Amino acid sequence: MARKTQLATRFLTIFNRLVTSTPKARVLLALSGGLDSIVLFDLLMQHSIDFEVAHCNFKLRGEESDKDVVLVSNLCERHHVKMHCIDFETEVYAKENGISIEMAARELRYNWFNNLILQFHFDYLVTAHHAGDNFETALLNLTKGSGIAGMKGIAASNGKILRPLLAFSKEELKAYAISQGLEWREDASNESNEYQRNLLRNKVLPLLKGINPHLEHTFYNSGWRTGLWVDVLKQKLFAFDEKYKLHDSWEVPVELLNDAVNKAVFVEFLAEKGFDINTIRNFVEKEERKVGSQFTGSGIELYVERGYFSIRNSKVKTSIHQEVTLNSDIKIEKGKSIIAEDFKGKLDYSDPYCVFFEKDDLQFPLILRTWEFGDRIQPFGMKGTKLISDILIDKKLPNSKKNEVLVLLSKGEIIWVIGLKTSNKFKIINKENPLVRIIYKA
Amino acid sequence: MARKTQLATRFLTIFNRLVTSTPKARVLLALSGGLDSIVLFDLLMQHSIDFEVAHCNFKLRGEESDKDVVLVSNLCERHHVKMHCIDFETEVYAKENGISIEMAARELRYNWFNNLILQFHFDYLVTAHHAGDNFETALLNLTKGSGIAGMKGIAASNGKILRPLLAFSKEELKAYAISQGLEWREDASNESNEYQRNLLRNKVLPLLKGINPHLEHTFYNSGWRTGLWVDVLKQKLFAFDEKYKLHDSWEVPVELLNDAVNKAVFVEFLAEKGFDINTIRNFVEKEERKVGSQFTGSGIELYVERGYFSIRNSKVKTSIHQEVTLNSDIKIEKGKSIIAEDFKGKLDYSDPYCVFFEKDDLQFPLILRTWEFGDRIQPFGMKGTKLISDILIDKKLPNSKKNEVLVLLSKGEIIWVIGLKTSNKFKIINKENPLVRIIYKA
Repeated sequence: MARKTQLATRFLTIFNRLVTSTPKARVLLALSGGLDSIVLFDLLMQHSIDFEVAHCNFKLRGEESDKDVVLVSNLCERHHVKMHCIDFETEVYAKENGISIEMAARELRYNWFNNLILQFHFDYLVTAHHAGDNFETALLNLTKGSGIAGMKGIAASNGKILRPLLAFSKEELKAYAISQGLEWREDASNESNEYQRNLLRNKVLPLLKGINPHLEHTFYNSGWRTGLWVDVLKQKLFAFDEKYKLHDSWEVPVELLNDAVNKAVFVEFLAEKGFDINTIRNFVEKEERKVGSQFTGSGIELYVERGYFSIRNSKVKTSIHQEVTLNSDIKIEKGKSIIAEDFKGKLDYSDPYCVFFEKDDLQFPLILRTWEFGDRIQPFGMKGTKLISDILIDKKLPNSKKNEVLVLLSKGEIIWVIGLKTSNKFKIINKENPLVRIIYKA
Repeated sequence: MARKTQLATRFLTIFNRLVTSTPKARVLLALSGGLDSIVLFDLLMQHSIDFEVAHCNFKLRGEESDKDVVLVSNLCERHHVKMHCIDFETEVYAKENGISIEMAARELRYNWFNNLILQFHFDYLVTAHHAGDNFETALLNLTKGSGIAGMKGIAASNGKILRPLLAFSKEELKAYAISQGLEWREDASNESNEYQRNLLRNKVLPLLKGINPHLEHTFYNSGWRTGLWVDVLKQKLFAFDEKYKLHDSWEVPVELLNDAVNKAVFVEFLAEKGFDINTIRNFVEKEERKVGSQFTGSGIELYVERGYFSIRNSKVKTSIHQEVTLNSDIKIEKGKSIIAEDFKGKLDYSDPYCVFFEKDDLQFPLILRTWEFGDRIQPFGMKGTKLISDILIDKKLPNSKKNEVLVLLSKGEIIWVIGLKTSNKFKIINKENPLVRIIYKA
């Protein structure tokens, strides 16, 4: 066996620091046959770490892919290491699921790795990401515009995944491989479809090394430094969610923006929830925050209310429109229902969700629908008509609730703005006539 | 005058937001004659903003520099704008001060701008930094390895300096300049000695735009997002300093590292104080923090004490070594002194900084010096000798104080470890003999 190099010693220190769960870990090595994973194989061997190998054939490079399999299986055989191998129809999977080849390969391999971990009781999956990958990730995130979380780089440990080569640059790994006489397959992973990664790796990084030749080592430490703030952020985000969540929405006091920490956390919260950063910036920085304004993200909405912001997952616009027949319980959605029934007895107006009409004033089926802009009613006790939108403003209904208001119509005329107003035109003149009671249940 | 473009309208909104101090600001425009500043000149003119121009001739590009001056002065004359112009001997200044040409040009120009602001009562200096400069700054900082502060980019306003073009990309500015028929001097600033900037601007940025064509706009917003955390950091750093500063050192409890926020702030504090990030990482992350260990930064030292860390500006190593004659007050440093004098009277051992010897046991001048590794003394009342270093450990002297301990010698033998031990070999046998009293004053 080759003598222990300095790299091998540093590796062991790092590896032992990452392995926290068990004194004698059983690990699964993701081995592509490229330089990085071949070095990792050698290091695990040298330090007598208990491991097996997993190799994926994504069948993306024809004969080349097959040669990778041969290299890996020969290596495992020579060293008596158990090898798990699988063939993927990556292109088919990508097409079937409407995702990129890169994403397909990632999904396929991590699903399989997870299955192996469960089936064979491995403690960890070990991958050969190195310092260059780490910087590339940060640079890619910077280019695409992430917050501080994206500047952390790749985590050295993340659940069951360990990446003990993150402290080493490509150059160091290559020098090690040569010094140990290792055999690897050039570009085994590089020729994949990862255009952006390869652009960064092969074109951008060499240029940046003109500014800082020790780029990757520098980033290994500065990424850690940034990571401490990401830890802070995660903690604060968790607390923020706990503090302001009400059922399926968040109600956040406006004054919160006066405090630097709360402001920064709120912005990250909105970004995490799917608002784009330009929208957030407009909202937070500018004065376009008057009550009633509304901001939309991907699957989420923010309403500016009096004294607070209301953030809710945007509903699939269930513009309700359905018939209400007499004496049957009509289901609306999510346990809501409406019932119009013949009624005899004492009129009780104490529940705003229970109203009464003379039967002859109505024509069944009634129509229950979401209110629309321009809808009007002559409110009970008034002479003229009024816009529903004005009624909602008068009632100080939270903007986030406005879209949900329903109206009930008879022959095209609104007889009830549910929970809020009945029509003066449909008021009961003679209680002795046949009556109808309408009850809305939410 | 050309019609107002969309860019001009956006510019005015941004400019008005930045100008907070006065409704009608008087500004000084730094005008090189390059595309960016020529556009800024045009925008200030268009919106009738009250401004004058400052142009520096750094004399770094011979005739080209002179042509810049001609362009700028013609422009100012045509529009009746007052122009301030200055010639700098940049290369001479750089050489004399041992700094780079880039740094020299920066110092010269900002000093002059400041003088103009004071002399002519301008409210602001306006510079033409654009979105590309902004991203370049972040990318440069990422490459060199900064913390989150470096990922903020350039501030749109910083004291009296405003940068109202930060929201616009180079392409937008160029399209504007062409549409308005503006005349500028290509590369007026680009050919300067800023190798790193030009590498990023001309080589790296075009590549990254292959990943995100709207790179600069993206960063304009994500830099703002990061900036919110930099605001948090600044606030917390200020509070940290207030809380843990004691005279000229900081005493920070060890438990602080258990809290995510405190840990992140402490790391930034150490980085700001001049520790390199690798040193900090070793110190914070690893177990190399046993009491007595010491970490050195640039001009600063950290000592691990029992229960706390002591951080102090590193002293210029005043390894004290001086003669102490009889009956004269010897000054040491910073108000400290030692006096050895003939003594008659009652011996009082209550002050550890006042000791007594028989005169005949001593040979003057005595030598007062900083203790050295390997120094030994036979402590009073003991038979054998003991290392000074062991005495300091026994006394539980804070590590940060150990370097300052002084010893007093007669004929090469240590008679007093000041404030701590006297030598058994020099103890008084007969009080009736002529005596000497030695007092150390701090």
